[in-house]
Amino acid sequence: MKNRICKLALMIAAGIAHAQETPTERDAARDVVRKMGELEKSLDLPKVVAGLDTANPPREQVAARARELMQTELLALADDLTKHPEIGFEEFRSIDKLAAYLKQHGFEVTIGVGKLKTAFVAKYKNNRGAPTLGVIVEYDALRGTKGPFHGDQHSAQGPVGMAAAVAIAEALEKSKMPGSVVVIGTPAEEMMPPAKIDMLEAGAFQGIDVLVRSHSSPATTRPAAGFGSCCLNIDGVKYTFSGAPSHQMTPWAGRNALEGVIHLFNGVDAIRGNIRPEARIQGIISEGGAAPNVVPDRAVGDFYIRYPDEVYLAQIRDMVDNAAKAAALATGTKVKIDNYGRDRDGFSLASLAELGFAYLKRYGADQIKEEPDTPSGYDETGLVSRAVPGIGFSAHTSNATYHTYEMEADALTEVGHKGFVADAQAMAALLYDFLTHPEYRALVKREFEGQKSLFDEYLEALKKAYVKPSIPDPR
Amino acid sequence: MKNRICKLALMIAAGIAHAQETPTERDAARDVVRKMGELEKSLDLPKVVAGLDTANPPREQVAARARELMQTELLALADDLTKHPEIGFEEFRSIDKLAAYLKQHGFEVTIGVGKLKTAFVAKYKNNRGAPTLGVIVEYDALRGTKGPFHGDQHSAQGPVGMAAAVAIAEALEKSKMPGSVVVIGTPAEEMMPPAKIDMLEAGAFQGIDVLVRSHSSPATTRPAAGFGSCCLNIDGVKYTFSGAPSHQMTPWAGRNALEGVIHLFNGVDAIRGNIRPEARIQGIISEGGAAPNVVPDRAVGDFYIRYPDEVYLAQIRDMVDNAAKAAALATGTKVKIDNYGRDRDGFSLASLAELGFAYLKRYGADQIKEEPDTPSGYDETGLVSRAVPGIGFSAHTSNATYHTYEMEADALTEVGHKGFVADAQAMAALLYDFLTHPEYRALVKREFEGQKSLFDEYLEALKKAYVKPSIPDPR
Amino acid sequence: MKNRICKLALMIAAGIAHAQETPTERDAARDVVRKMGELEKSLDLPKVVAGLDTANPPREQVAARARELMQTELLALADDLTKHPEIGFEEFRSIDKLAAYLKQHGFEVTIGVGKLKTAFVAKYKNNRGAPTLGVIVEYDALRGTKGPFHGDQHSAQGPVGMAAAVAIAEALEKSKMPGSVVVIGTPAEEMMPPAKIDMLEAGAFQGIDVLVRSHSSPATTRPAAGFGSCCLNIDGVKYTFSGAPSHQMTPWAGRNALEGVIHLFNGVDAIRGNIRPEARIQGIISEGGAAPNVVPDRAVGDFYIRYPDEVYLAQIRDMVDNAAKAAALATGTKVKIDNYGRDRDGFSLASLAELGFAYLKRYGADQIKEEPDTPSGYDETGLVSRAVPGIGFSAHTSNATYHTYEMEADALTEVGHKGFVADAQAMAALLYDFLTHPEYRALVKREFEGQKSLFDEYLEALKKAYVKPSIPDPR
Amino acid sequence: MKNRICKLALMIAAGIAHAQETPTERDAARDVVRKMGELEKSLDLPKVVAGLDTANPPREQVAARARELMQTELLALADDLTKHPEIGFEEFRSIDKLAAYLKQHGFEVTIGVGKLKTAFVAKYKNNRGAPTLGVIVEYDALRGTKGPFHGDQHSAQGPVGMAAAVAIAEALEKSKMPGSVVVIGTPAEEMMPPAKIDMLEAGAFQGIDVLVRSHSSPATTRPAAGFGSCCLNIDGVKYTFSGAPSHQMTPWAGRNALEGVIHLFNGVDAIRGNIRPEARIQGIISEGGAAPNVVPDRAVGDFYIRYPDEVYLAQIRDMVDNAAKAAALATGTKVKIDNYGRDRDGFSLASLAELGFAYLKRYGADQIKEEPDTPSGYDETGLVSRAVPGIGFSAHTSNATYHTYEMEADALTEVGHKGFVADAQAMAALLYDFLTHPEYRALVKREFEGQKSLFDEYLEALKKAYVKPSIPDPR
Repeated sequence: MKNRICKLALMIAAGIAHAQETPTERDAARDVVRKMGELEKSLDLPKVVAGLDTANPPREQVAARARELMQTELLALADDLTKHPEIGFEEFRSIDKLAAYLKQHGFEVTIGVGKLKTAFVAKYKNNRGAPTLGVIVEYDALRGTKGPFHGDQHSAQGPVGMAAAVAIAEALEKSKMPGSVVVIGTPAEEMMPPAKIDMLEAGAFQGIDVLVRSHSSPATTRPAAGFGSCCLNIDGVKYTFSGAPSHQMTPWAGRNALEGVIHLFNGVDAIRGNIRPEARIQGIISEGGAAPNVVPDRAVGDFYIRYPDEVYLAQIRDMVDNAAKAAALATGTKVKIDNYGRDRDGFSLASLAELGFAYLKRYGADQIKEEPDTPSGYDETGLVSRAVPGIGFSAHTSNATYHTYEMEADALTEVGHKGFVADAQAMAALLYDFLTHPEYRALVKREFEGQKSLFDEYLEALKKAYVKPSIPDPR
Repeated sequence: MKNRICKLALMIAAGIAHAQETPTERDAARDVVRKMGELEKSLDLPKVVAGLDTANPPREQVAARARELMQTELLALADDLTKHPEIGFEEFRSIDKLAAYLKQHGFEVTIGVGKLKTAFVAKYKNNRGAPTLGVIVEYDALRGTKGPFHGDQHSAQGPVGMAAAVAIAEALEKSKMPGSVVVIGTPAEEMMPPAKIDMLEAGAFQGIDVLVRSHSSPATTRPAAGFGSCCLNIDGVKYTFSGAPSHQMTPWAGRNALEGVIHLFNGVDAIRGNIRPEARIQGIISEGGAAPNVVPDRAVGDFYIRYPDEVYLAQIRDMVDNAAKAAALATGTKVKIDNYGRDRDGFSLASLAELGFAYLKRYGADQIKEEPDTPSGYDETGLVSRAVPGIGFSAHTSNATYHTYEMEADALTEVGHKGFVADAQAMAALLYDFLTHPEYRALVKREFEGQKSLFDEYLEALKKAYVKPSIPDPR
Repeated sequence: MKNRICKLALMIAAGIAHAQETPTERDAARDVVRKMGELEKSLDLPKVVAGLDTANPPREQVAARARELMQTELLALADDLTKHPEIGFEEFRSIDKLAAYLKQHGFEVTIGVGKLKTAFVAKYKNNRGAPTLGVIVEYDALRGTKGPFHGDQHSAQGPVGMAAAVAIAEALEKSKMPGSVVVIGTPAEEMMPPAKIDMLEAGAFQGIDVLVRSHSSPATTRPAAGFGSCCLNIDGVKYTFSGAPSHQMTPWAGRNALEGVIHLFNGVDAIRGNIRPEARIQGIISEGGAAPNVVPDRAVGDFYIRYPDEVYLAQIRDMVDNAAKAAALATGTKVKIDNYGRDRDGFSLASLAELGFAYLKRYGADQIKEEPDTPSGYDETGLVSRAVPGIGFSAHTSNATYHTYEMEADALTEVGHKGFVADAQAMAALLYDFLTHPEYRALVKREFEGQKSLFDEYLEALKKAYVKPSIPDPR
Repeated sequence: MKNRICKLALMIAAGIAHAQETPTERDAARDVVRKMGELEKSLDLPKVVAGLDTANPPREQVAARARELMQTELLALADDLTKHPEIGFEEFRSIDKLAAYLKQHGFEVTIGVGKLKTAFVAKYKNNRGAPTLGVIVEYDALRGTKGPFHGDQHSAQGPVGMAAAVAIAEALEKSKMPGSVVVIGTPAEEMMPPAKIDMLEAGAFQGIDVLVRSHSSPATTRPAAGFGSCCLNIDGVKYTFSGAPSHQMTPWAGRNALEGVIHLFNGVDAIRGNIRPEARIQGIISEGGAAPNVVPDRAVGDFYIRYPDEVYLAQIRDMVDNAAKAAALATGTKVKIDNYGRDRDGFSLASLAELGFAYLKRYGADQIKEEPDTPSGYDETGLVSRAVPGIGFSAHTSNATYHTYEMEADALTEVGHKGFVADAQAMAALLYDFLTHPEYRALVKREFEGQKSLFDEYLEALKKAYVKPSIPDPR
């Protein structure tokens, strides 16, 4: 999970937080927020959750099996992965371990999705059609100054997800019910470009009816219903300038690509004064010339451009792209614009979140935070959560915050283990309910479709709100 | 060994530098310079001048009449104008005095040329066809911190030019020879935009075969033959940016035109590092916003862009214009580009200059500088001198340098008066020779046409020399 | 008339420009140049050279021995080194070969000078006091895009220098004359910081009376007498900025070191408009931040600052240093300024250069350029040549220019070999004359001391010429 | 009143809005806000107001007298002033009219306070010691593109304030009660530098126990209790750069002051990326050079620097001042920093505001807005409201918003007149209560002293919250 920055949310009704962060957004979204409130109310979730989260021996068996797998095999695997951290796109050892376990438990594993060598898709051999349950597992470590480390406990996601998937697969097998289970290994969550978007475009999530994932957390929480992200919508963009080299003594025979990049930074600095203050634009110069006595003929600026919503973000992107084109024009250089990464608002569904939260509590997760978090999709790109309904599980698994050596250490002790087991059980239980209750599946679908349509409305409203000033011709 | 760039360093042998200004120019012009040398040699000017600058009673009479007019009337008028300085485009009193004198002596005066209210054209009433002799007179004063002043002695140009013109007109009248004389009053020499270009375009110099002018000088001099300017070729350009206003609290609702201008200055600063060092680009911000709590929606940058030759100057202009367009693009503003002034290399003809110099000496000019000055046209724009052959007269008229209160004071004393009289006599004598010696006219024309054709060749050579680097697409 | 700034324009008369590089320099140096002319004239060099460059059997024997060593052993060694290029500070294989040869021929070799692991000093075992002859040899290759290569033929310098040194050592041995010979291995000529300055400060050139060196050349040349450099005086300066890191979402908790560097570049761009046009200032950004979502807390700009003379260079350095301090002040960061390299005007002595040139011709160097080059010291820093009289030998050794693959290829063929042999003979001959003619040594010393004193005078004159404007307090 | 931008306030309890705008401020102020809640609760204002806003014949007489003065004389004067708008510092006609009226009604008027020629202090002749009631009146018009206009209805403030003051003076006279009344004419509310700060420093508010003022409004409102401002805390700062002039051809002989200003703008642009987003910094270039062919030796940037609280504002000011000093250092120029204007958070007291609001309703003001506005002092500088307890009256006087031609037009019609009369009555009534109820005066004083002490606490808390990052020395 990327660094979570507190959002000031607009509270509409108890239990539902909406993530409209800026005055303009709040204003534009007023109608959508009201409709969202009505939608959520119409689902009558307290009653639905109460109806499911009750004594149900078959579900209990599945959850118990997941716990058993964790305790006998998978906590040990989680510890092993924690101790052998691998950074994104290089998690070869990690996926070997996960794939071996899945194969051992009746899954067919395909390693590699498109260009992603450490992605995989594992389908249970005896899958029997719809509904299809998807389990996302991540396994990349963070890049630390002392080498890779599992400061975000991705090492436990594979074991947690596999415990639930195998328990469900065994239940499918035993009952001969219709239904399928798929485990999807998604690499490099902590890096750009986002692997999940490539996998979405490659069809890796095709046909899946619900997606679940677990993640480490300093408290047991769930998101409110709605649209949102942890840390603004993001465009990752690389601006590569080319010029012409020349000896320093005759600079007029060259064109200075580094001046192009510096102009771009100056342009971005000037943009800041004329855009809404919630934006964040920051860059580095990843290539800035080779030798001071040669006119640099190549230079690269790498930027993250963020805004609370994607509509105004697009306006800012245009401005930054224009600043780059202007930099090339002013310096006689050329520029290539490469939008290598995109993070967007995701959807979060209370129908899934509230039941999952109830199960986390039922299966012993502690440090409960009753107030829901602001909405944000279960995946860091947001875009997968717009394509497939789903939910993340966040049992308390550490006393420290994200991206710390302490969180890594907690993965190896009781605090982590207890939370991972709760995650696995709650995940198995929710999947079992989804598998066996068609009316619950319909409810989830209704919420998902409702959000989809409200999201379109929301974007339309924002487009109207962000009027660009008109500029007269200079006299 | 590091890349060896030729350094002209401490060397022993004696020598005299004679060359184009920049290495590239010198290189490109080598052939033209050689041909120019051949052209000049072929004119055999020492012999021509010796043949004319000899005892010639009718010419002596004309010169004597010019001296008489100066001493009896026109030095007094010069003093009067010196004491009543008027800045460019506002020389109403000055032209009243000049026009009155010309009318009194048989000239028809038309005041106003195009939009120029203080320009005039005065044709002698009894003009009799070709050849047509043109006398340019200027009369604007300098803008001083204490008000207008004649620190460049333009106050004397009208009297000097009229002395020569009237003397010639009377000679024409007496002799009934074919020929015409025209006095052209050109305002605002010290200001932009250059009035003479407007007058050239309005046809004020049409049909004139030779143009003469006098100017104050700290020494008696003449230019060498060739192309050149006093102070580089110049483009005066105004860049006007428009944006959209907004209160400081909501700057995103506006677009900042001042940021546009500042970007342009930054762009120009960056350009300096990648152009040839002989360039001079400097600007001011003549409008920079109205109040700090309102986003400035209008701002203006005003630049002088200079280079020793007009070919590379055009490349620099493109770069600065591009920087302005880039500034608008980067800041979401619009820009208007107004090239309000242009000064270019002029032609100077030795056939006129050497004879004029001989007559200045003959008629008593002192402080003779035998070495010719660098070439430069007789008008400050250079462009008139490319259209009509001509020459400026520079007798010693002050012990101080240009644009000083001392030079103004000298205009009222013996040092100025003596020089003005010499100028008037030399001008009358040269015009008389031009009028009466068809073979001399042909020689001047040959030199003029020769320079014209060499100038075209020179520009072509420069175009080839100034190759732009090619920029590959960024990878 | 507009303010007249001297333009050197199209002029006719023929002539040869010989002068200091900038108008100010020329002006300031007028007196020094005159005195330099008198000094050189007083040496009566044509007569001196004619007296030495005559039949002299012992000198012929020494030169012949140098040729023999080249042909039998050292051309092969040169070829070997050419084929095994090593870049600066890493020339381990190369110095092994050179040191082995020198030891074999009676030299005591000390490898390593101060921190320079690939520098060496080799003294002949039977040295007998003054005069001490020093031979500089370089051996570093260029950094090419395809790896190191000997595009400057430094590979031959060791063999050439050793041929001369060994021939002289043998002559010393045979004759039992007083005198010493030292070979000094100077690494990394192509890189900064300049190794020779470290060696100078470490005393490696102490006690040496004359220094010689050979270098590849597209023609057989020698420098004129005087002060100069190939490519301006240079300061290499690294500006390292530190700030404070912070997540992109809370940039106010950090300070951006990259903005510090960008400010410095902007500052330098603005400086260009207010300094003399002969300057060259260019930089790269060698460290520009690590990740776009973290405020960069470290960034580095690396500049070469050049000017034709060191006096005004110091003023420019101050300005750039001030721009760096200003950048830190404006961005709340800190800056460290590291002047890692300095190249300065060197001395070139006609007493050595003219005799060396005569011997190059005598021993068969071809492609003779009779006109002397501009002055520049025999070492690239200039500073060694101010400490010890000396000269470089430049026989024609390639048909290509410096820093090319063609020049490397020529080192292995007849064109290179012929030139190297000529260099070795001429070097041996000149050293022999220096060793055996006390009156010649005295003459060299007189020229050297004369230049030293004129150089001090020259610097004083420049200091007076470069007046800084005084700035009033703002009202 | 300056352009009011909606603040998002933190609501604590019904009826009390607090203006802590930023997350940091809210966090730092948590304790202060809680104590403020307790303070306000302890005042038991609903009961106090109910006790005063009841049948009270003497108060009714005073209010009725104010109404009578308005209807018979002062609405006509208001109309007259509306029709003769004068901009700040030039309101000579306006103060003549006001002073004449006050003299006519027994006031001694002193025109001019310090350097302020259109300020005045009018004391009732028969003042009898404490308590002293102060009435602030403003009268400056706005600068419109078509000339001055009363788009903020300051034209009515004098009449409203004088109606209340004269009614009170007459009551004092009749009753022979102890007490004094003073009318203070404060010019140029719409301009910088703020005249009220000069008057505060000159002692014009010395000895006054309560200050009242009226202002136009699109609704009948009153502020919540607490600290705040309409539009952030503001520093108005002028940065004047001086350099050295030089002709464009020799820029090195000058130093460019305009480059200094441009550097400052670039510096400010770069600062934006590293400060909290609620800041607003904007500038204009009020002097940007005289002629493009002369190096500008003087240039001026004029900035408004704003932040929601004055503690972080001071940090930003330091940064901008440092950017200015850096700009001077980098360009070799000098800078003078002139902080010509300061606006700060003011105090608003519910004890006064709630009673005034009750009286506005009682005396017929319409368009009542029941929810209190965010807090802000009764004067635009904020600083006077920290020195003397007071309140502004805002009856509905226009259907248009501030600074519009429509608001000016409404001043002349029933909508304006009705509101002005209500303002006058409510003001007179409140002043009468203050005069005659010592326990109410004590209550107001208690709230004022309480706020003062909480404000000090608040500033201390903010100082702790805004930690500056520490910057290590560059390695």
